Amino acid sequence: MSVKFAVLGHGVVGSGVVELFYKNQKSIEKKAGTEMELKYILDLRDFPDAPYADKFTKDFNDILNDDEVTAVCECMGGLEPAYTFVKSCLEKGKSVSTSNKELVAEKGDILLAIAKEKGCNFFFEASVGGAIPIIRPLHRCLAANDIFKISGILNGTTNFILTKMYNDDMPFDEALKLAQELGYAEKDPTADIEGHDASRKICILSSLAFGKHVYPKSVYTKGISQIDLCDVKIADQLGYAIKLIASVKKLDNDKILPSVMPMLVPRDNIISGVDDVFNAVLVDADAVDKSMFYGRGAGKFPTASAVVGDLIETVKHHVNVFSQYWEPSQDDSFIESIENFSSKWYFRIPSDDNAHASVMFNCEDGLAFITDEELTFAQAKAQAESLGAYALIPILL
Amino acid sequence: MSVKFAVLGHGVVGSGVVELFYKNQKSIEKKAGTEMELKYILDLRDFPDAPYADKFTKDFNDILNDDEVTAVCECMGGLEPAYTFVKSCLEKGKSVSTSNKELVAEKGDILLAIAKEKGCNFFFEASVGGAIPIIRPLHRCLAANDIFKISGILNGTTNFILTKMYNDDMPFDEALKLAQELGYAEKDPTADIEGHDASRKICILSSLAFGKHVYPKSVYTKGISQIDLCDVKIADQLGYAIKLIASVKKLDNDKILPSVMPMLVPRDNIISGVDDVFNAVLVDADAVDKSMFYGRGAGKFPTASAVVGDLIETVKHHVNVFSQYWEPSQDDSFIESIENFSSKWYFRIPSDDNAHASVMFNCEDGLAFITDEELTFAQAKAQAESLGAYALIPILL
Repeated sequence: MSVKFAVLGHGVVGSGVVELFYKNQKSIEKKAGTEMELKYILDLRDFPDAPYADKFTKDFNDILNDDEVTAVCECMGGLEPAYTFVKSCLEKGKSVSTSNKELVAEKGDILLAIAKEKGCNFFFEASVGGAIPIIRPLHRCLAANDIFKISGILNGTTNFILTKMYNDDMPFDEALKLAQELGYAEKDPTADIEGHDASRKICILSSLAFGKHVYPKSVYTKGISQIDLCDVKIADQLGYAIKLIASVKKLDNDKILPSVMPMLVPRDNIISGVDDVFNAVLVDADAVDKSMFYGRGAGKFPTASAVVGDLIETVKHHVNVFSQYWEPSQDDSFIESIENFSSKWYFRIPSDDNAHASVMFNCEDGLAFITDEELTFAQAKAQAESLGAYALIPILL
Repeated sequence: MSVKFAVLGHGVVGSGVVELFYKNQKSIEKKAGTEMELKYILDLRDFPDAPYADKFTKDFNDILNDDEVTAVCECMGGLEPAYTFVKSCLEKGKSVSTSNKELVAEKGDILLAIAKEKGCNFFFEASVGGAIPIIRPLHRCLAANDIFKISGILNGTTNFILTKMYNDDMPFDEALKLAQELGYAEKDPTADIEGHDASRKICILSSLAFGKHVYPKSVYTKGISQIDLCDVKIADQLGYAIKLIASVKKLDNDKILPSVMPMLVPRDNIISGVDDVFNAVLVDADAVDKSMFYGRGAGKFPTASAVVGDLIETVKHHVNVFSQYWEPSQDDSFIESIENFSSKWYFRIPSDDNAHASVMFNCEDGLAFITDEELTFAQAKAQAESLGAYALIPILL
């Protein structure tokens, strides 16, 4: 008897899931330990020429009310109707794997609780880092560890733009235009370049690593649209690459500090070499020291790979197998204010000011330097204001 | 009721497992979903001053015959008595997690079959890449993929030596001596520097990825003891880092070709930036494209992290949860001969020879070049002989 599943949404990721399933069906079934059948694809559009045209339905209830369907891949994206659909599936005991980071970042705690209660699985490996196995490794393989810090390049669009600025001396606007031409950036690129996409992903990793739901609204988020080409070039000469870093740190006061912002990454940090649309996540923990995961953060088949990987796991285990779980958070009192974020800082200031720093660089419109000491964000901002700084960027320590 | 487990061997890794368990016991138990108790530590030596001195036994039968013990961590290393002990445990239905690469590379098929038959788990995340989650990600997270190729830096000792040669112009012998002084290399460094350690690890990854047991004797293995400092420097100037690469490739004829040898890694391959004792594994597969895993490949706590991670999983699931499995291989007819290994090649030859290559470099004792075309190993060797080459090293393509 075969296990029957449905795919919600036949866009880039959903069609990738369907195609990947049919392409590797034999080995996928071998790993799942059972035959599998794709019974429905939900989409409001028509796909009369698809080789699996008979699978399409426009009515979600066909899927919800078919007790034969025990597993569902949600690839619609956006909060609604994805949330309503996924919730209904889980409440009926159907396991769900999703690629929808917005859904997990906003509603993960609620959906995990329903899955736990109903004894089914809510999996979301595809929601962070696309093809990169990070959710499962973080939660299972590093389970023996006390995690201190996670820092990642979690958005491919911005990493592509910064790589172009760095490698080809291309100003931000031009690099963004190129990213749009290549299909790496949306027509409205706000979610990517302003850091919202990365913010959702660091919420998911923070919730998973530290056990309480972290909402995007609690995360300080700054994008790359104000990064000047000259800062990229100066950083390079000082031995750093500028990257959009999504990170979360456990502090001595037991609070956590998640953030998304451009940072100067030292060349000897393996993350500095992560270029183009690739993503990477670096985990600092007590036993492993440093562990890094790297791969394509988006795209049709990379993302589908993660969704189908989750599907295989859920087909193999009809019961809830994941202790992957976090609690709802009543408030964000466990999250430290960004004002207390501490690091060394890169300043670019008018030249007539005198900086007392050991790393200095004379540039066209003044002087760039990196502070010798760590400063809080509040202190750095105050200093930047008094110096009339053109640029203020923290170092990834 | 707590789940009781035993640790076999109280050397570097075994003591790490015990210490890590006690350090993070609370969060480990939370993830395992049950209380856990370390009941025995097997070692022939006495540790009267250990805070857990009452746990030690010298008699393996205390553990084997205690039905309360349902999980065992094997950290003794070497084939015997590890094999006999692990086999007996699995036959009694006790799950085993091991850090012993020799054991898995030589006897993995037999032990996996017993675990499957008895419905218990045989886990070995720690046997490859120490702290790096690779076994589980490869098998589970990438389960939807057709894997083409795995290439890794799987030995920290040799990577440390090559990094010293590269960064500090240190000749091989001197770098080896330093590695020994720092405790990164054994007194008898043969297993590391001649590639045997890496060979065992690529056997395990090959068996897992391609489903048939690959024995170390079937793997062409060449170490780094003949790498000349001048080749490291020339490679650098040509844009490559020399690394000891353990790799396996699926060929068009459906055979696989595993090997361990020094290779020139192009600077734009993320693996080229993996330095010092760090390890990394790069996986090429149809859906994910490229995925890389990086971390500490050895050491007390990194390795213990992987063993305890496996222990948590086995405690959580009393039944066999892994489809991780490979068949015994009757012969090695599924393994391609190294003579047919194909790549571009780095040659260093006496200067009076004329090379027709577009990448050339004049060096002290002649000329170094990289072939424009791919050649098989057999062809490259013949050419090297006819040119009287001093050095012949393949490029990691």
